[in-house]
Amino acid sequence: MSENPHDLSVGIDFGGTSVKIGVCAGADVVENAEPIDTAKYGDSNALIDAMVERVSSLREKHPGIKAVGSGVPGLVDFDRGFVHELTNVPGWKNVPFRDLLASKTGLPALVDNDANCMAYAEWAYGAGEPYHNIVALTLGTGIGGGLVIDDKMYRGSQFAAGEIGQMSIDYKGRPGPYGNTGASEVYMGNKQITEHAIIRYADAGMAKKAEELSPKQISEAAQAGDEIARQIWGDVGEWLGSLLASITWLLNPDAIIVGGGMAKSGELLFHPLEEKMKSMLSVVLWDNLHLIPARFGNEAGIIGSAAQALDAANS
Amino acid sequence: MSENPHDLSVGIDFGGTSVKIGVCAGADVVENAEPIDTAKYGDSNALIDAMVERVSSLREKHPGIKAVGSGVPGLVDFDRGFVHELTNVPGWKNVPFRDLLASKTGLPALVDNDANCMAYAEWAYGAGEPYHNIVALTLGTGIGGGLVIDDKMYRGSQFAAGEIGQMSIDYKGRPGPYGNTGASEVYMGNKQITEHAIIRYADAGMAKKAEELSPKQISEAAQAGDEIARQIWGDVGEWLGSLLASITWLLNPDAIIVGGGMAKSGELLFHPLEEKMKSMLSVVLWDNLHLIPARFGNEAGIIGSAAQALDAANS
Repeated sequence: MSENPHDLSVGIDFGGTSVKIGVCAGADVVENAEPIDTAKYGDSNALIDAMVERVSSLREKHPGIKAVGSGVPGLVDFDRGFVHELTNVPGWKNVPFRDLLASKTGLPALVDNDANCMAYAEWAYGAGEPYHNIVALTLGTGIGGGLVIDDKMYRGSQFAAGEIGQMSIDYKGRPGPYGNTGASEVYMGNKQITEHAIIRYADAGMAKKAEELSPKQISEAAQAGDEIARQIWGDVGEWLGSLLASITWLLNPDAIIVGGGMAKSGELLFHPLEEKMKSMLSVVLWDNLHLIPARFGNEAGIIGSAAQALDAANS
Repeated sequence: MSENPHDLSVGIDFGGTSVKIGVCAGADVVENAEPIDTAKYGDSNALIDAMVERVSSLREKHPGIKAVGSGVPGLVDFDRGFVHELTNVPGWKNVPFRDLLASKTGLPALVDNDANCMAYAEWAYGAGEPYHNIVALTLGTGIGGGLVIDDKMYRGSQFAAGEIGQMSIDYKGRPGPYGNTGASEVYMGNKQITEHAIIRYADAGMAKKAEELSPKQISEAAQAGDEIARQIWGDVGEWLGSLLASITWLLNPDAIIVGGGMAKSGELLFHPLEEKMKSMLSVVLWDNLHLIPARFGNEAGIIGSAAQALDAANS
């Protein structure tokens, strides 16, 4: 790889099904370790040991590694680096994850929510680099979010800020996972978009199955000229536009950065999204807002956790 | 008055119909000047001169006054102290209000949006004093809001943050002033509550007039045992609860402070509001949130602008 002025650090992208680990130099993932299958480990200690073993191997090749960070799929007590519970990973209850990582690797360690790591990656090295007040979101199974306020991660009073997927788009709408009426992710999660697509096609007299209607497949159909598929993205733009306009009225950010698989649908999503947001905002808010796709895809979690850990160690 | 350890400063609460001016020592308004009738002044210069004349008189009695601040009913370019336009006050277009106040009084001056001044008053001396991350809102003709993040006013990239009244509670709802579907203030503004009450009573076979159905009158009826009036507050709690739950998911604040005339309805509003929010939030978010009425009423604008100006002059 090319010369890179950045120090090296390790990022651990801890997901519900797999753990991906990489050595980063700024925005570059210099080397990846072999991923870990989360389901193979019944308790947190064994899984942490597997992570630590990967980190050790990476350090043999890259002795300059200065810190290790991990993005976690759930609520983290950031100040203490403590994981209360991960609903999708068995055996993770009251784990002092950061301190275990630090003591077992001997490196400065940092642990944060995964969406915050994604937001940090975009702010430090990605689409959000020029901006100071940023809302970053990932559209996938659910909707995650992270906020940068005045060039600093904003985590909230209990480190639980940024839960964009739980915000309501309809006070009398569909119930979300907390009974929260109109929760945005029960409209725009991958599965819900597929369910919505089945209904849209059925209304037009076409019986389609879930297997044919992933967001990616809907995008391909729309690009091939399918009017119904295009309309489905129009519906998502309507929902997401309302949500992001509300966030803009509240926070007046410089930039909203849209990531996750769905962001790959490009203009199919961004065109109706922009139209909806423009129709809902004042000129001052809309003209100064940068609504942009994320730079990083699957590597955002590794890059963001590695960058946060390094910056914290250096500060 | 009792001894007060605070320095003195002047606050100017610049409203659409009147300008109220007072000398403050912390949370105490030590003396009020005679209010100014905004409509009597066709241009900004004459109105500013009238304000400056009041400030001069107050300084004769209180020579210790150290700064002057004003809360303005519209968007302010905070860094420059510049008012682009006030839709409700004729003759206010592109006015360098802060610099005119400073040069004409010889005092350090500060100009901010009125909702930010209210939020500052509550954070510095009011219900928000113990907290670090605060959302303050006023329920009146419209809904205004201000945010304190990490013990600092957060104004947004164009100083336009906190517009809670424009946030949507229904992506396909009633159009707001910007065409923004579901804008919360077109449900919960004073006038809209009256309109909603007329419908609620009509549905029950009772023809009532707007003059009988101000929020205050609805509260009185509810307190006297009127079931329909009570239900109207239940509806407002439903709308407001959905809005404030969304804000809580996004910002995870310590405190949400509810001010304005409607906050005086007390438990009639707060009970259904709390029920709705609790039903929409995680345990962590709800248990740690302080949902509280504002300390200051009509004096919030004077106290907050005076406090902001003094703190800025002293920093």
